[in-house]
Amino acid sequence: LPFMDASRMWFVIVLTGIGIGVTGAWLDVLVKWLADFREGHCVHGFFYNQPSCCSGFDAGEICTDWQSWGQYLDIQYILGQSLLHSVVYVALAVVFAGSAAILVQFYAPYAFHTGIPEIKAILGGYVLDAFLSPWTLLIKALGLALAVASGLSLGKEGPLVHVACCMAYLLSGLFKQFRHNEAQKRKLLAAAAAAGVSVAFGSPLGGVLFGLEELDTFANESDVMWRGFVTSVIAAMSLQYIDPFGTAKLVLFQVTSITDTWRAFELVPWLLLAVAGGVLGSLLIKLNVRVALYRRHSALNDWPLLEVVGVSALTAAISYLIVFTRVQTSELVANLFQECDPSKTDYHGLCNPTAMWENVFLLIVTALLKIALTAWTFGMMIPAGIFLPTIAVGASLGRAVGLLTQGLQRAYPGAWVFSSCPPDPTVPCVSPGFYAVIGASAMLAGVTRMTISLVVILFELTGALSHVLPIMISVMTAKWVGDACGKDGIYSVWIAMRKYPWLPPVAYRDKGETAAQVMTPIERLVIIEDGCTLGELDNLTRKYNFHGFPVVRDAELVGYVTRDKLIEFLFAREPATLSTRRCTFSSRRSTAEDNLENLSNLVEEAILQLRKEQPQELVVDMFQKLNLRQILFTHEGRLTGMVTKTDIVALLNLHFPHTAALSELPGRP
Amino acid sequence: LPFMDASRMWFVIVLTGIGIGVTGAWLDVLVKWLADFREGHCVHGFFYNQPSCCSGFDAGEICTDWQSWGQYLDIQYILGQSLLHSVVYVALAVVFAGSAAILVQFYAPYAFHTGIPEIKAILGGYVLDAFLSPWTLLIKALGLALAVASGLSLGKEGPLVHVACCMAYLLSGLFKQFRHNEAQKRKLLAAAAAAGVSVAFGSPLGGVLFGLEELDTFANESDVMWRGFVTSVIAAMSLQYIDPFGTAKLVLFQVTSITDTWRAFELVPWLLLAVAGGVLGSLLIKLNVRVALYRRHSALNDWPLLEVVGVSALTAAISYLIVFTRVQTSELVANLFQECDPSKTDYHGLCNPTAMWENVFLLIVTALLKIALTAWTFGMMIPAGIFLPTIAVGASLGRAVGLLTQGLQRAYPGAWVFSSCPPDPTVPCVSPGFYAVIGASAMLAGVTRMTISLVVILFELTGALSHVLPIMISVMTAKWVGDACGKDGIYSVWIAMRKYPWLPPVAYRDKGETAAQVMTPIERLVIIEDGCTLGELDNLTRKYNFHGFPVVRDAELVGYVTRDKLIEFLFAREPATLSTRRCTFSSRRSTAEDNLENLSNLVEEAILQLRKEQPQELVVDMFQKLNLRQILFTHEGRLTGMVTKTDIVALLNLHFPHTAALSELPGRP
Repeated sequence: LPFMDASRMWFVIVLTGIGIGVTGAWLDVLVKWLADFREGHCVHGFFYNQPSCCSGFDAGEICTDWQSWGQYLDIQYILGQSLLHSVVYVALAVVFAGSAAILVQFYAPYAFHTGIPEIKAILGGYVLDAFLSPWTLLIKALGLALAVASGLSLGKEGPLVHVACCMAYLLSGLFKQFRHNEAQKRKLLAAAAAAGVSVAFGSPLGGVLFGLEELDTFANESDVMWRGFVTSVIAAMSLQYIDPFGTAKLVLFQVTSITDTWRAFELVPWLLLAVAGGVLGSLLIKLNVRVALYRRHSALNDWPLLEVVGVSALTAAISYLIVFTRVQTSELVANLFQECDPSKTDYHGLCNPTAMWENVFLLIVTALLKIALTAWTFGMMIPAGIFLPTIAVGASLGRAVGLLTQGLQRAYPGAWVFSSCPPDPTVPCVSPGFYAVIGASAMLAGVTRMTISLVVILFELTGALSHVLPIMISVMTAKWVGDACGKDGIYSVWIAMRKYPWLPPVAYRDKGETAAQVMTPIERLVIIEDGCTLGELDNLTRKYNFHGFPVVRDAELVGYVTRDKLIEFLFAREPATLSTRRCTFSSRRSTAEDNLENLSNLVEEAILQLRKEQPQELVVDMFQKLNLRQILFTHEGRLTGMVTKTDIVALLNLHFPHTAALSELPGRP
Repeated sequence: LPFMDASRMWFVIVLTGIGIGVTGAWLDVLVKWLADFREGHCVHGFFYNQPSCCSGFDAGEICTDWQSWGQYLDIQYILGQSLLHSVVYVALAVVFAGSAAILVQFYAPYAFHTGIPEIKAILGGYVLDAFLSPWTLLIKALGLALAVASGLSLGKEGPLVHVACCMAYLLSGLFKQFRHNEAQKRKLLAAAAAAGVSVAFGSPLGGVLFGLEELDTFANESDVMWRGFVTSVIAAMSLQYIDPFGTAKLVLFQVTSITDTWRAFELVPWLLLAVAGGVLGSLLIKLNVRVALYRRHSALNDWPLLEVVGVSALTAAISYLIVFTRVQTSELVANLFQECDPSKTDYHGLCNPTAMWENVFLLIVTALLKIALTAWTFGMMIPAGIFLPTIAVGASLGRAVGLLTQGLQRAYPGAWVFSSCPPDPTVPCVSPGFYAVIGASAMLAGVTRMTISLVVILFELTGALSHVLPIMISVMTAKWVGDACGKDGIYSVWIAMRKYPWLPPVAYRDKGETAAQVMTPIERLVIIEDGCTLGELDNLTRKYNFHGFPVVRDAELVGYVTRDKLIEFLFAREPATLSTRRCTFSSRRSTAEDNLENLSNLVEEAILQLRKEQPQELVVDMFQKLNLRQILFTHEGRLTGMVTKTDIVALLNLHFPHTAALSELPGRP
């Protein structure tokens, strides 16, 4: 019944969309509450966060219902108050981060990190069901809220994609149609991943394009793209309906009141920012790899909890000292993106021209600090996304450059470079808030090496077509500079380090090599000879854990048999008979013959066969596009070798020095 | 020098984007001027169109500078004036359409029709350079302006994509890098096609998604997608910069002042519209096929000019009688999308509640008339897009349903279905303008069977996230209903009728068939035997115009040689020697031997070989994803058969009854 199949599919898709929207909203509320708890509490009840506690007051009034911990404990001395506040701030950060780490380490080791590398591998055909278990879903969501609230340098974007995929996996388990069909399941996961991005950024189209560009999922199948779009829109609408911030806005940070036009001279600071984004993005990736390698090969490997506690304490202690880092990262970004508007409160004097140098200095310190902390945090035993900290670094730098440009223009309004500015000095010419957007997009491009999805996500934030061009230029420049400093984005690097079987969708060009250079020749292959004993087969399955084995008769290829099928077959036989009975894989030979077991129905005969003279790039192309697991090579019917997906992955990762450096599974050192 | 290659590529892309934006703007201006010329002229000079002639006047004032033809010739009697107006209206329509047809027929036969089927085929690997010649570019652009101004039932969207591709092709010819690399050229064309849609609808993201969904171009290659996005944005910005309508808006019809919310009961009329869209869309496709077949097999085939003149006269005569069809189609759509607003002029009493029944009747007549006219017009010897007429049909129907719903709600405001409406009767509850949008999206989905790109294009028109859900539902429902009435969209139907080698990106599932069922067995293949005489080769190339021939030695496959290479080789030989000299394709045999020509360097040895037991769906999948031209089948090194792209296209078009019905080239009956 194709109609029932389609209905079930849409049922899962709509439910996943709603589920992710609700989860996203719930996470926001939880994080806000936990984060506010680090500063004080509400006299009406501890379960109110600060805005809902003070909702009855007007903007100008002082909210007395919300008490800081100093007020609550009635400490009179300012020094004592400050001390108490900082101690509570740091202590709760450690408690939150520590609980998240305990949850992850003991209940769901797969809930650590961002999850996007694993999802890329899964969507590429890797089967890793434990990664999508309901337990992982719960721990990742809860741990994420705790980790974000602890003020560590991490974001919720990537983990939210993981949560979305877990949810789709859970819902797909309701129907047999999906349980036993990996391809169908992958299509659902692709749609869910798009919805995760949609909720994380409030950008449904950005979610679809993220799925297309980074997850490489919807290739060649527009119905999958359509499902991803539907899920994204439903998720975004659910989030908007719940409206966790009470602002009727989809996103935490929205760019408001940008000026209509930009001037040509601004391209110079923007290009500088783009170059800085590319360089610093590469630096962040390199630092992150260093830290990951150090963690693996030092005592930290055995004490992940201690590491989380230590880093969160350090992060909280340093963050408390700097005004920009003390608040939640999302709030910082929102303020940096905000243009100066006399009718609104000025966030820490960012709009005060006399405080320019202090602000620039503090912003640059913030950016450098965030780079260092993020490089360490991304990879610890907690759920951690890299998008938001990257945006924060870029926005800080961008705002700093914007302030400098604005200062320059105000100091020399008559200079010829500024001649395109309006002559009236009270009309602002340079918008530092948009510089923060440019900086963020450049930094994101440097770290993730994405292009179109970043532009669309930031376009949906700003909403002005006229400002797409600078964003586009900065993303492209940052990607070029980043690619020159190091070929891979952060997700590809982690995939390579953890050795997931994922093929990057790059166009591979050989230099005249043929498949013969990459294939394992028959001499080094583990093959099954027709006519061997069942005991030999049993040994084979115990000794090697390959996915399967080619079957030959007199060097001529018969087919391919998977290890799972062999084990299943052998399990049903009496152990005593194994060493005497022989097997045949030919359907023509009669089983009536003595001591002959016919295994021909286990064999896949329709396995792809090529000649080893085929060019290497064609072989890579076939693995990339046909989602194959192996190709056998024959010559005049005789097996000459085999190439597996792992060989191709290794071939494409040759340039990266740390491949497989972290290949063991998390939680199992 | 990869850097120089990249620079040239970006140079072409940026220039194409600007070129398309400028062309789009220029076309709009030209069409407006021509169309206004049918009604009157400006006293300051005939080259002003009506808005620029009257630009000095306020909204309320009567513009005396613009004279209708009746005023100009100073005809006093109303009857005489009306007669003159209608005669000029019809006569100029015939003149415009006739000139367009003459241009197309005598100078660029490929400039007829929409062009999208051909572009799909070209992007799928078909080489048809005449279709993209500079001459086609010029005639298509000019003819398009004339055809649109003539008031025929056609739009500029599809032809604009063709124009964009011609422009990219022209610019790519500047560099050797593109001239001799079909794959590189195709990537440029894909980007240009996206930009064409971007300009046609003022929707840069819609352009990218159109490329993804309908043209199936960016699959697996995110850098191509990125280029398409850049081209789209640049084109849209150029258009906005030139601002042909002086409205600072990107699109001709923009949905304004839609209410914030919609009510659940409105889903009932919307679903009705969606079903109607699916049914009428299928009907339009079927009618169009009928007309195309009739045209081919009747006297019309020899008199295309006469057909254009006749249809344009008929269209103009009928259109003049109905108030909604007399104006340009884009203007009609803009007015139908417009919500009623007391501060704006009411377009032909659409907002007048007492005229409801007249309006509903006229709108339905308009929709039916447009369906009939469009079915005939789409395929005549003029440039003609199907998007705009389809939108007009859908918008008319939608507005009619919206008026009816509004009337019902106003008549029974207390009924329980309307309980969600605001109690104050002066506050409008139903927005008929948005019903027109829903109708348009449903009709588009029924005709083109696209999904996500339609939603994005219409989303960029309305801009409200809350209204994406109804558009999504209506598009999906219309597509389902349409698919139930007939499997293919209008572009696929035309591709099949004209027999272009294009593989639909559908997931093909065989019923256990293997490649053996679809391949041409060796007995029926034209093959080259190693050792045949050059005269035999010469005969082969004259007798068959296949792309190439397999080469065998003693039934064993040596390789594949293309016909072009053979012809080139034979051309350089003396005709007299052909019958005596023999050929060898083996590189090992020495050419010193008497009468032996070594052709081994002509042979492609790295041709894809499979066994004929491979499942059919794998073979189809390989053709779809690896962009192959043929696969050879061997068994133990011996050739057993061949499958070409044409075989696979035929296999996938089996269900369509009129395949190849129009397969000859236009202009060459």
